[in-house]
Amino acid sequence: MKSHQIQLTAYPKGEPGSDHFNLVEVDLPALRDGEVLIANRWLSVDPYMRGRMSGIKTYVDPFPLNGPMEGGAVGEVLESRSDAFKKGDWVMSMQGWRDAYVADAKLVQAIDASILPPQAYLGIAGLTGMTAYVGLKRQIALKDGDTIWVSAGAGAVGSAAIQFSKAMGAKVVATAGGAEKVAYCQSIGADAAVDYKAVDNLAKAIREAADGGVNAYFENVGGTHWTAALEVLKPKGRIAVCGMIQRYNDTSAQPIPDNLTNIIAKSLRIEGFIVSDHMDLRKDFITDLSNWMMAGKVSGEETVREGLANMPNAFLGLFKGENRGKMLVKL
Amino acid sequence: MKSHQIQLTAYPKGEPGSDHFNLVEVDLPALRDGEVLIANRWLSVDPYMRGRMSGIKTYVDPFPLNGPMEGGAVGEVLESRSDAFKKGDWVMSMQGWRDAYVADAKLVQAIDASILPPQAYLGIAGLTGMTAYVGLKRQIALKDGDTIWVSAGAGAVGSAAIQFSKAMGAKVVATAGGAEKVAYCQSIGADAAVDYKAVDNLAKAIREAADGGVNAYFENVGGTHWTAALEVLKPKGRIAVCGMIQRYNDTSAQPIPDNLTNIIAKSLRIEGFIVSDHMDLRKDFITDLSNWMMAGKVSGEETVREGLANMPNAFLGLFKGENRGKMLVKL
Repeated sequence: MKSHQIQLTAYPKGEPGSDHFNLVEVDLPALRDGEVLIANRWLSVDPYMRGRMSGIKTYVDPFPLNGPMEGGAVGEVLESRSDAFKKGDWVMSMQGWRDAYVADAKLVQAIDASILPPQAYLGIAGLTGMTAYVGLKRQIALKDGDTIWVSAGAGAVGSAAIQFSKAMGAKVVATAGGAEKVAYCQSIGADAAVDYKAVDNLAKAIREAADGGVNAYFENVGGTHWTAALEVLKPKGRIAVCGMIQRYNDTSAQPIPDNLTNIIAKSLRIEGFIVSDHMDLRKDFITDLSNWMMAGKVSGEETVREGLANMPNAFLGLFKGENRGKMLVKL
Repeated sequence: MKSHQIQLTAYPKGEPGSDHFNLVEVDLPALRDGEVLIANRWLSVDPYMRGRMSGIKTYVDPFPLNGPMEGGAVGEVLESRSDAFKKGDWVMSMQGWRDAYVADAKLVQAIDASILPPQAYLGIAGLTGMTAYVGLKRQIALKDGDTIWVSAGAGAVGSAAIQFSKAMGAKVVATAGGAEKVAYCQSIGADAAVDYKAVDNLAKAIREAADGGVNAYFENVGGTHWTAALEVLKPKGRIAVCGMIQRYNDTSAQPIPDNLTNIIAKSLRIEGFIVSDHMDLRKDFITDLSNWMMAGKVSGEETVREGLANMPNAFLGLFKGENRGKMLVKL
């Protein structure tokens, strides 16, 4: 059987172009014991892929030149020599940028396409959504009637956290940088949204937007946002520390004001987490997400391009702002 | 019936002397419904009482002149017109500095003198010990085999936390300021103790004393200690935030280095608490403490003076360093 795949022909300097990509036909090997043959139906298109096209090793190897690239993908099992899968099963893998592949069954993960659209597993039902869910459920233990502040509300995790918090019955104050991102937070359900770049006193702005204070804070930013959070949290407030992007971009860490006595005075609970430590919640997540999507409380917004040959254009489109929500290629 | 009480005759400026106190005999009123008559057996002698002798209102009123002073006390019920108590019951109250009193039964608290010596309720079995216990049990969830760093180890809460941590099977690294306090931490069971005033790099010193890092941190200090804790905690480390005395003494808060990304990178859990929110643990605390004391694992060190007339001298002795552990007067 033949497979078609997109290969990288050179490591682009600056903005990549369509001439850096090539559509190649390859022969697939015959299945051995324990292997599966998969036809991909949806390919994930993500900004992080640019990093692997630089030719420089970071925490992960660069894509090879003139070889298969990786990326999230969901597909159907065409043939199986593994007990774990049968023909017609839906699976998720990192074998993207191609229409079919043969792989060890251990390298693909079963997904339940009966309760969620299969492509949702590349977006809001994937690790991004799971990260938001874990923070809200386990670290914050968000309750109906709570008020929560979600920082970086227009980001991937933040926008999931806004929607899930609303679905869980909370009032949501979001922060983001710039009018466009603020409008986006409101469009997906935030009760109030604050442009942190446009206010002098962030704590005061949050307190006003939240009618006094918040019970929980979803931390994606750090620095000035952390300091404000300790001010605006109410007694017994909870912080899920998911990311601190303000700090990552500093070349040297700025000192922060020491307002930590708020932790005692208000009996705050603060917990950092890494989603992979909490995969025991995955089944609950898929069930809750399915119910929320059916009730129209959560929408995984998608921009869809058709056909493997359009994969490079879909990728290049990310950098031209062509997508709203998750960018996907349908095969 | 007559009661004898110590009264303050003037608000001392600087160091108080015995001439500021007067032993007075007063008549006790007859009991009304709901009241109890108590004979005190043990009086608590505490440094904080000096603040109430200044004549200045802080968070609590100053002691009156030529009237009864307050303080922790335990005693026996001599007569009861309340269903809550019968003759011979042991109770704790704030009706100290006197040998007997009549009070509404709601103002006294029952104590179990069959499982702990009654005077222990004024020391390690009182709020100080309870504070250490709550932090270790609930916020930190200390486990057998954990290594814990206890800051301000020579203080009232810190010294209880050292002893309880050892009784719970943990390895303890303590910090304190000065050689004498360090030696005291070791004398009550700390496996290692660090003089934070004598080291250039606190995190390095803790790491060496702890053979690599700690699983938990009992926070009594804040500032430089907090920063070091985020460095030396191991993955899944827990911090109970009990006090931040370094910060209280600052007239203006010093900024602290932003090393908060450790909270995510190591999935740390940090929780502030106030002991009064956790009184549901009191019964467990008394049971555990009783077992630990019987097994010789915890000792509530006491310095005892005899007789009500010696109460002023016992109090003045606090400021001359005459006590080791809790200062008490036995009646």
